[in-house]
Amino acid sequence: MQKHSVKAFGTESKDADLKEMIINRREVTAKDIEIEILYCGVCHSDLHTARNDWGGTKYPAVPGHEIVGRITKIGSDVTKFKIGDLAAVGCLVDSCRTCSSCEQDLEQYCLNGSTGTYNSFDKHLGNHTFGGYSQKVVVDEHFVLKVPENLDLAAVAPLLCAGITTWSPLKHWNVNQNSKVAVVGLGGLGHMAIKLAKGLGAEVSLFSRTPAKTEDAKKLGANHVIISTNPEEMQAAFGKFDLIIDTVPYDHNINPYISTLAVNGTLVIVGYIGEMQCLLQTPPMIMGRKAVAGSVIGGIAETQEMLDFCGEKGIVSDIEIIKMQDINEAYERMLKSDVKYRFVIDMSSLKN
Amino acid sequence: MQKHSVKAFGTESKDADLKEMIINRREVTAKDIEIEILYCGVCHSDLHTARNDWGGTKYPAVPGHEIVGRITKIGSDVTKFKIGDLAAVGCLVDSCRTCSSCEQDLEQYCLNGSTGTYNSFDKHLGNHTFGGYSQKVVVDEHFVLKVPENLDLAAVAPLLCAGITTWSPLKHWNVNQNSKVAVVGLGGLGHMAIKLAKGLGAEVSLFSRTPAKTEDAKKLGANHVIISTNPEEMQAAFGKFDLIIDTVPYDHNINPYISTLAVNGTLVIVGYIGEMQCLLQTPPMIMGRKAVAGSVIGGIAETQEMLDFCGEKGIVSDIEIIKMQDINEAYERMLKSDVKYRFVIDMSSLKN
Repeated sequence: MQKHSVKAFGTESKDADLKEMIINRREVTAKDIEIEILYCGVCHSDLHTARNDWGGTKYPAVPGHEIVGRITKIGSDVTKFKIGDLAAVGCLVDSCRTCSSCEQDLEQYCLNGSTGTYNSFDKHLGNHTFGGYSQKVVVDEHFVLKVPENLDLAAVAPLLCAGITTWSPLKHWNVNQNSKVAVVGLGGLGHMAIKLAKGLGAEVSLFSRTPAKTEDAKKLGANHVIISTNPEEMQAAFGKFDLIIDTVPYDHNINPYISTLAVNGTLVIVGYIGEMQCLLQTPPMIMGRKAVAGSVIGGIAETQEMLDFCGEKGIVSDIEIIKMQDINEAYERMLKSDVKYRFVIDMSSLKN
Repeated sequence: MQKHSVKAFGTESKDADLKEMIINRREVTAKDIEIEILYCGVCHSDLHTARNDWGGTKYPAVPGHEIVGRITKIGSDVTKFKIGDLAAVGCLVDSCRTCSSCEQDLEQYCLNGSTGTYNSFDKHLGNHTFGGYSQKVVVDEHFVLKVPENLDLAAVAPLLCAGITTWSPLKHWNVNQNSKVAVVGLGGLGHMAIKLAKGLGAEVSLFSRTPAKTEDAKKLGANHVIISTNPEEMQAAFGKFDLIIDTVPYDHNINPYISTLAVNGTLVIVGYIGEMQCLLQTPPMIMGRKAVAGSVIGGIAETQEMLDFCGEKGIVSDIEIIKMQDINEAYERMLKSDVKYRFVIDMSSLKN
C-alpha cells in the first residue's frame, strides 16, 4: 500500500516524554479522506495510553482523537466531502460494519471490535493506528464528520470525544425539556454534559465536592449545584433526577447518587473504567426501578447529530490552546485538574 | 368505623410459630370489596416478615399477599365487581393515588408510600394491615384484580406476587418474540419468569448452579440451561441476553451475568434486597451500554394485564397445596428450597 511520512508527536515508551517523530499515513484509497489537522483536543485517554496506564499500549504511541481540520485529498469514490471542507474525526476510524451493533449505527459497540483512532490494529498498513497529534490523518469517509462552519474550530475539537461521550447517554435516555439531569464531576466531560443537557432543555444540576465550582457551573448552564459532601443537600435531592451522567474518572461511591434518582432513573457511568470498591445497595434500586449503566462515546451518525446540534445551539467546549511542544506539561496539569476544561493543541505549532 | 372479627393465622413475635388468631376487618365502605379467601400463596416475604428478618415487623403479624377468592360483599359505589365474582389481591391494598408514580399506574413506586397488604399502616382501622392468611379481606376495588375463570384457582395465587414481580420487568424492558431472556435462579420467582418470558415468545435460558435442575427448567419452558459454575458455558453465553431477571434471594456476584448481556442489555435484580458484596466491574457495562437495575412487584393495571395474559396463555404457577396448620413446616421447607415452586394454602383448612 502506498504511504507517505508525516510529522507527529508521540512517545516511544511509557516513561518517556512525548516528542516529535515521523510516522506513515496511507495514501487515500477510493473511500478515504486526507485531513490536514488544524486542532486536536487532549483527552485523559491520551495520557493513559501514552503512559500505558491501562496496559496494552503499542509504541511508538501517537495519541489524539479529538481531531478537526480541512480536507486536502479525497478518494475517487468519496461522496460526502470535497477538498477544502472542514472535517472532524473522533475516537473511531473503522469498525466491522456488518454486526448488529454496526447495523444500528452503534459502531462504538461493534461486536467484532471497532478500530480506535490510535493504538488499534491498522488493517491498511499492518501496524497500529496513530492519532491526531500529527500533521495529517487519512480516514474512510464513513468515519469522518462534517463540522458546522459557524463554530470556533479549536473549541469544536473536544466535542469529538468529551462531547459525544456525554451526548450519547443524554439522547439514549431521552433527555428533553421535561428532564431533570445531574452531572457528577466538573471536568472535560462534565462541562460538556452540562452544556449539552442544558441545550436539550433539561433542568441541570451539578454534583460537586467543591463549593468553589458553583459559580463556574452556573456560568456553564447548571441550574443548581449540589455539594455532595453536604448531607442536607444530598437529602434534599432524594428521588429527583431522571438521568445522572457520572463523569468522575476514578473509583468513587455511587450509592449516594443512586438515591437521588427518580423512579425509573438511570445513573450512567462514563468516566471510570475499572472495579468499583463501593458495595451496591439494591434497596433504592429495587424500590424505584433505578438503574446503573455504562456508556462509551457514541456512533458516527449520533456524533454528526451532536455536531449539528452544537452548530444550531452555538455550543462548543471551553478550551485552553497549547502548542504541540507543551503537551508534556499539559499532561501534568491535567493530572491536577488544572484546565478549564480541555486543552486543545494548535497543530500549526508542529510545522515549526 | 364498623368492623368484624375473622379467623386468621399469624404470629405474636419473631420467635413464635404462626398459630390461629382473631383479627378485625373493616365493614365494606362505598368503594370496598369483601373477599372470602379461598387460596393464599406463601411468599418468602411472608417468612421474612413473620421472623422480622428485615426489621420493622409489627405484631401480631398476619402474612399473605397472594390472595384469590370469591366476592362476598361490595360497597355501594363499586363498579368493577359484583358479589360472587372471583377476585384477587396482591402485595398492595392502597397508595396515595395522586403522586407522579400513581398517576402512571406505578402504585408500587408510590412516592408517598404504598400500603402493603400486610405490615403497613391501616388508615381505616388505625393499626397495621393483616394479610391473606385469614378467612376474609376487605380492599378498595382499585386494588382488587379480576381472575380469569379458566385457570386453576389455587395455582393463580402466586401470580399475585411471584408472577407480577417477574412480569413487570419483562414488560418494562419490552420482551417479545425477538428477545433473548435469561433467568438467574429457579424458585418461586424464577419458575414464573421462565413461564412468562416463554409466554411472551422470548428465547429463554436459565442460569443455575445445579445441573439437576436442567430437566425441570426445560419442562417449564426454558430453551437452554447454563450451568453458572462452568466457565466454558459462561464464556459461550458472552454478550447474549437482552434481559436477565435475577431472582436469587441472597447476596451473589452479578459480574459474570453482566458479561452475558448483549449491547443495551439490562440485568434486573428482583430477588435480593440488601448490600451486594461483589465489586461492580464497569468495563463490560461501559463497553456495551449494559445496565443493572432493580424492580419490585408491579402496578395494578399491569397486574391485571398479567392475569389476563395468563388466562389467554393458560399460565399458572406450579404449586404444592398445604393446610393453614402446616405453615410453620412449610416455612422450614422453603428455607431449604424444598418446594416446586410455591406453597399455596387451601384456606378452607382455616374453617376447621
